[in-house]
Amino acid sequence: MNNFSYFNPVNIIFGKGEIAKLSSLIDKKQRIMLTYGGGSIHKNGVYNQVVVALEGYDIIEFGGIEPNPEYATLMKAVEICREKSVDMILAVGGGSVADGSKFIATATNYKGETPWDFMIGKAAVPEALPLGVVITLPATGSEMNCGGVISRRELKEKYAFFNPTGFPKFSILDPTVIESLPPRQVANGLVDTYIHTMEQYLTEDNNSLLVDRWAESILQTIIEIAPKLMANQAEYDTYANFMLSATMALNGLLAMGTTQDWATHMIGHELTALHGLDHGATLAIVEIGIMKVMREKKREKLLKYARRVWNITTGSDDEIIDRAIAKTEELYRSLGMKTKLSEHNIGDETIAEIVGRFTKRNTNVGERGFITPTMVGEALTLVK
Amino acid sequence: MNNFSYFNPVNIIFGKGEIAKLSSLIDKKQRIMLTYGGGSIHKNGVYNQVVVALEGYDIIEFGGIEPNPEYATLMKAVEICREKSVDMILAVGGGSVADGSKFIATATNYKGETPWDFMIGKAAVPEALPLGVVITLPATGSEMNCGGVISRRELKEKYAFFNPTGFPKFSILDPTVIESLPPRQVANGLVDTYIHTMEQYLTEDNNSLLVDRWAESILQTIIEIAPKLMANQAEYDTYANFMLSATMALNGLLAMGTTQDWATHMIGHELTALHGLDHGATLAIVEIGIMKVMREKKREKLLKYARRVWNITTGSDDEIIDRAIAKTEELYRSLGMKTKLSEHNIGDETIAEIVGRFTKRNTNVGERGFITPTMVGEALTLVK
Repeated sequence: MNNFSYFNPVNIIFGKGEIAKLSSLIDKKQRIMLTYGGGSIHKNGVYNQVVVALEGYDIIEFGGIEPNPEYATLMKAVEICREKSVDMILAVGGGSVADGSKFIATATNYKGETPWDFMIGKAAVPEALPLGVVITLPATGSEMNCGGVISRRELKEKYAFFNPTGFPKFSILDPTVIESLPPRQVANGLVDTYIHTMEQYLTEDNNSLLVDRWAESILQTIIEIAPKLMANQAEYDTYANFMLSATMALNGLLAMGTTQDWATHMIGHELTALHGLDHGATLAIVEIGIMKVMREKKREKLLKYARRVWNITTGSDDEIIDRAIAKTEELYRSLGMKTKLSEHNIGDETIAEIVGRFTKRNTNVGERGFITPTMVGEALTLVK
Repeated sequence: MNNFSYFNPVNIIFGKGEIAKLSSLIDKKQRIMLTYGGGSIHKNGVYNQVVVALEGYDIIEFGGIEPNPEYATLMKAVEICREKSVDMILAVGGGSVADGSKFIATATNYKGETPWDFMIGKAAVPEALPLGVVITLPATGSEMNCGGVISRRELKEKYAFFNPTGFPKFSILDPTVIESLPPRQVANGLVDTYIHTMEQYLTEDNNSLLVDRWAESILQTIIEIAPKLMANQAEYDTYANFMLSATMALNGLLAMGTTQDWATHMIGHELTALHGLDHGATLAIVEIGIMKVMREKKREKLLKYARRVWNITTGSDDEIIDRAIAKTEELYRSLGMKTKLSEHNIGDETIAEIVGRFTKRNTNVGERGFITPTMVGEALTLVK
């Protein structure tokens, strides 16, 4: 087991009706910027619950944060925060709104010319404004971590940043919001949760007995609840277990003492940047390729994954691994995910472009940099 | 799944050699009270590591905190903290030292006459002084929660208190400290971890799919590592998984969305208060009695426990439950624990005394108060 530190001060308020607690979490003297996305919160009743809970508060609204939140959009919010001396951000939405709001909270306090500089490591990340989150889509785990992923379309770039001062002060998780989600978003959320877990689990074996089991617990829970969610047969507890799994998959717990991979995400981000694919849709394809190209290095853990998560115990080791990869692909397909690039009309040209980008950056990806740009190309070719 | 809130701001620094990081965690201007127990830290090298890391700091030492930390002892430390204007407490020891130090950190700021009043709910718990912990014995989980258990021998009482402002600012967990522990303390720690988990798991079924699996993960990990630890065949990773399990068993995660029990602890505390038994020793006996007396109310979860944790899948439901209880008792006995009161020369008189205490307090115990004082007597009689 590796040495590690774990710190996560987010106050999680979980359950039916908990949005009403907002006023007990925010001082009335605070000037709030209320951020949201494309307006689904107006349809599903969450917006109403928020404004009722915060009646009498000084609120500036900023809607229109896109999926894969865009730098140019967020910079408009940053200008308003500076002009109007906003005290805190209240993000009401999914992972994109939460991520975008983390960027707003951070960039508002940035003293330099171009906040993009702290995204790409050219400048230090400043202390963030306080942030609260009401999450409306279980997927990214952004509600309980200090990271965010931001896109800049003019450069066709998508980068992650981390701000240790940027953890939400609180996040409200009301599982009933899932009832009104379109199936595509539910599927994206399930895949995202599954693969966040895999990125931290499917590595060399670190002898991390407890944390491996905790990762397997999330995978098993997703496998158990996915059919009910996709068949629209979910009850409150199904939603609650989904929402909790999504949050717990990326809040630092699964990283305790383990090596991490994240190659699937790094490569997936390129597919989103180049072709606008949903984040979850990119992951479902890339991960299958990564499992195949890394099957020797990840052999021990793939066997553990097969036995413990999929209960595959007979056959040769190679057969066991083959079946575990096949079961994983079946799971994604059962969620309506495509698992081949060609199904999205993506071919060799894009693979070459992505390999070129990793080559140009001159960095390997994956745990301990095992995956070279050439191997990125091999992984993508295996799922062409 | 029940609504819940989860907040745990402890900064965990985990791994071999991490005690050396103390100076990066404590401002040099702070006047520190360094608290410890009976002096084992002088023998195992931890004391040296701490003072080397904190060379040049202003430190007042306070040793001699007992197992089951005693109010009268702790009040001496409180007086010193007030006299010398101590800024923070650094607890170096096991759960008793951590618990006792939480009391010192809290009572120092108490304005009333008798700090015991906040222990028994007669007064509000004041804001605590900052606390850091270097844990030397995995067991109580005190290093990552805001609770403490304090004894007052003159009254033969033992009570738990919680201070939401009293979470350690940081806790350093170096698993190598386990190497030098006597087997009895290792066994106590394993039982304590196991039963902390059971108190939050073995309840009515809350449909809490993920959290149930996380609890089972801790139980499975303890079952996996216990034989190695008892046979002195442990390696670093064994210690690390033990230490992490102990901390994760009582930091709020297993309580997410679940009902909790704690009857075993409530009754066990009485055995310690009356007969001075080790905390772990009381739990190993009482829990078997509680499982037996609650087998109908806890039926569904006992079956889940049997199937998932012990892999018992054949036989009638009643046989499955019987075997799970027997396996649990075997586990405790394999750790050198006694599982009958008579083995500690405790008989009917003590059972009557404990039933009398619960009757006098006029409160049931266990989840949702299912366990009446009469049932406490039945449970103890079943393990006589």
